[in-house]
Amino acid sequence: MLTNSFFSSTSTRTLSRTLFSLSSLISKRTMVTPSVTLSGTGRQMPLVGFGIWKVPQETCAETVYNAIKSGYRLIDGAQDYGNEKEAGEGVRKAIADGLVTREELFITSKLWNTFHSKENVLKLTKKSLDDWGLDYFDLWLIHFPIAQKYVDPAERYPPNLLYDVEKGTMEFEDVPISETWSQFEEAVKLGYAKNIGVSNFAGALLIDLYRYAKIKPSVLQIEHHPYLTQPQMIALAKQLGIAITGYSSFGPQSFLEMGSQAALDTPLLMNHDVITTIAKAHSRTPAQVILRWATQRGVAVIPKSNNPQRLGENLNHTDFDLAQAELDAISALNIGLRFNDPADWPGHIYIFA
Amino acid sequence: MLTNSFFSSTSTRTLSRTLFSLSSLISKRTMVTPSVTLSGTGRQMPLVGFGIWKVPQETCAETVYNAIKSGYRLIDGAQDYGNEKEAGEGVRKAIADGLVTREELFITSKLWNTFHSKENVLKLTKKSLDDWGLDYFDLWLIHFPIAQKYVDPAERYPPNLLYDVEKGTMEFEDVPISETWSQFEEAVKLGYAKNIGVSNFAGALLIDLYRYAKIKPSVLQIEHHPYLTQPQMIALAKQLGIAITGYSSFGPQSFLEMGSQAALDTPLLMNHDVITTIAKAHSRTPAQVILRWATQRGVAVIPKSNNPQRLGENLNHTDFDLAQAELDAISALNIGLRFNDPADWPGHIYIFA
Repeated sequence: MLTNSFFSSTSTRTLSRTLFSLSSLISKRTMVTPSVTLSGTGRQMPLVGFGIWKVPQETCAETVYNAIKSGYRLIDGAQDYGNEKEAGEGVRKAIADGLVTREELFITSKLWNTFHSKENVLKLTKKSLDDWGLDYFDLWLIHFPIAQKYVDPAERYPPNLLYDVEKGTMEFEDVPISETWSQFEEAVKLGYAKNIGVSNFAGALLIDLYRYAKIKPSVLQIEHHPYLTQPQMIALAKQLGIAITGYSSFGPQSFLEMGSQAALDTPLLMNHDVITTIAKAHSRTPAQVILRWATQRGVAVIPKSNNPQRLGENLNHTDFDLAQAELDAISALNIGLRFNDPADWPGHIYIFA
Repeated sequence: MLTNSFFSSTSTRTLSRTLFSLSSLISKRTMVTPSVTLSGTGRQMPLVGFGIWKVPQETCAETVYNAIKSGYRLIDGAQDYGNEKEAGEGVRKAIADGLVTREELFITSKLWNTFHSKENVLKLTKKSLDDWGLDYFDLWLIHFPIAQKYVDPAERYPPNLLYDVEKGTMEFEDVPISETWSQFEEAVKLGYAKNIGVSNFAGALLIDLYRYAKIKPSVLQIEHHPYLTQPQMIALAKQLGIAITGYSSFGPQSFLEMGSQAALDTPLLMNHDVITTIAKAHSRTPAQVILRWATQRGVAVIPKSNNPQRLGENLNHTDFDLAQAELDAISALNIGLRFNDPADWPGHIYIFA
């Protein structure tokens, strides 16, 4: 069970404090961040990572390098983010400069919707590895349970949501998840991925996957924040022994720059009374409180920041605990509000219905 | 698209009014109730049927007979309801007495969770047909996307939720939906079922089924009432051209006798101001208003009643129309409240997470 697979957070805190007190010369980057033991493989996944969705190509290598320098050990990317080459550059420079070894890093990426068929999965897995300049991913995810029609990478890469950009249309492929998953299992056998998992899967589809998977998914990545607390998905993940990574931890914040009306219409969590009051009580930033709420309920997080100070604050948020009443007050903000729903895409895909 | 497959409700009403005015000797049972054209097979499914969940064995034959006599043409049963033999008795007597022909009836039943494996589906389909005393079902549904461990019908039939009744435990079987569905396709080929479909499937699982189904599902049966309006499921069904049957149309009502706390804690729809006000304005019963709200949005209904008057009222509810503002006011009661959730079962199965 997931609950048993965590390092005790108390001993982790004690350990990191001890490391700090041993010598002020020990830089932050050697601070031990809590991690989750992944079922099946037994490998460790850091509970706090750095997500590179919307990190511009121009700055991505440097941002990733700085994130690693600040102590991040998990980088969460995806084919769709369009910055895998640059992220890989940052990773390889960090290794070359001796900041970390490859083994100390945990690199996640995600297969895009257009590459679900058995002809394409391994070919595109290899392409992503080549783009990063890596031999393997620590975690390789199916980005969405949506099979879009193949777009040749030589024509357009990454392909965006639309099959035909001029016409604004989406097209689909009759590829069931079982076909894509069996290729993911091949990716493990070929050494392309240490762990495999899924993103944006709802309950019944995840349960069905467990009925036929020879290699079970290690991680489920889902949207998760105080406006969308997903209690049933968290309970299901515990039952299955699968770790959850929550994305868009700050809720509307990530969707403002995309012009999301729902995000514009929803009070920012950073400014929400419930959050700011708790932040003041702990002398922490609202962002740290929101992230701690997630990690205390066992959900790994992958916040992004282009600001070096916030980048550090996001990482170092696990050395305090919220009281149960505080956790409950934050969870009570739940209104089931999902910002990343393919029902809103041009093709209106109701994977969360 | 579903919207195109309906008879125009205006012409249907005109037709039924014409039939009425032709002769007062024409009994109610010959009244033409609106129907849905099912995709794939092109067969007609009545928009209003009679559901036999919780109809006691002792009275089931008579109740079903009376429902047919009152004009019902669709009987909705299931292995799990434990009354298929008695329902079949009622059906066969109605045919024998010349009330209807087999072809005028639409008989639905549902495969229980314990019979999902390829060894069991056809065997148990045949058993259900034998219990009803019929050669074919008009519609054969997967009751839940949940594969429980096989229970030998010779030991206990219908098996209930629990694998071990004494210990109160549930056990599962690693049978994916694709395995069960391919046997359902066989059932069509063997003539056991004219149409096949699924019940209690959420969006992503239904979409995945479409990716591999050689025979597409004709009908999706889901919980549907003003407290759980399921706008995304309805939109998805339209997109896929699959008809929706809504069960538990009256919301909490059906779950009171089962001691559901959620049902006890929720105002009955029958007494709800929004419903009673609209009912008065149309000189209809609250039940008729609730059912009309469903059928006007294209959702077929299968209400149950043991009371002959209500049985008639439920059936004959399609000869008036609610205004758009009235439909909207009822839809606004939506609070996403699901009464039939396997997450509440002993095994806590999160198919709606």
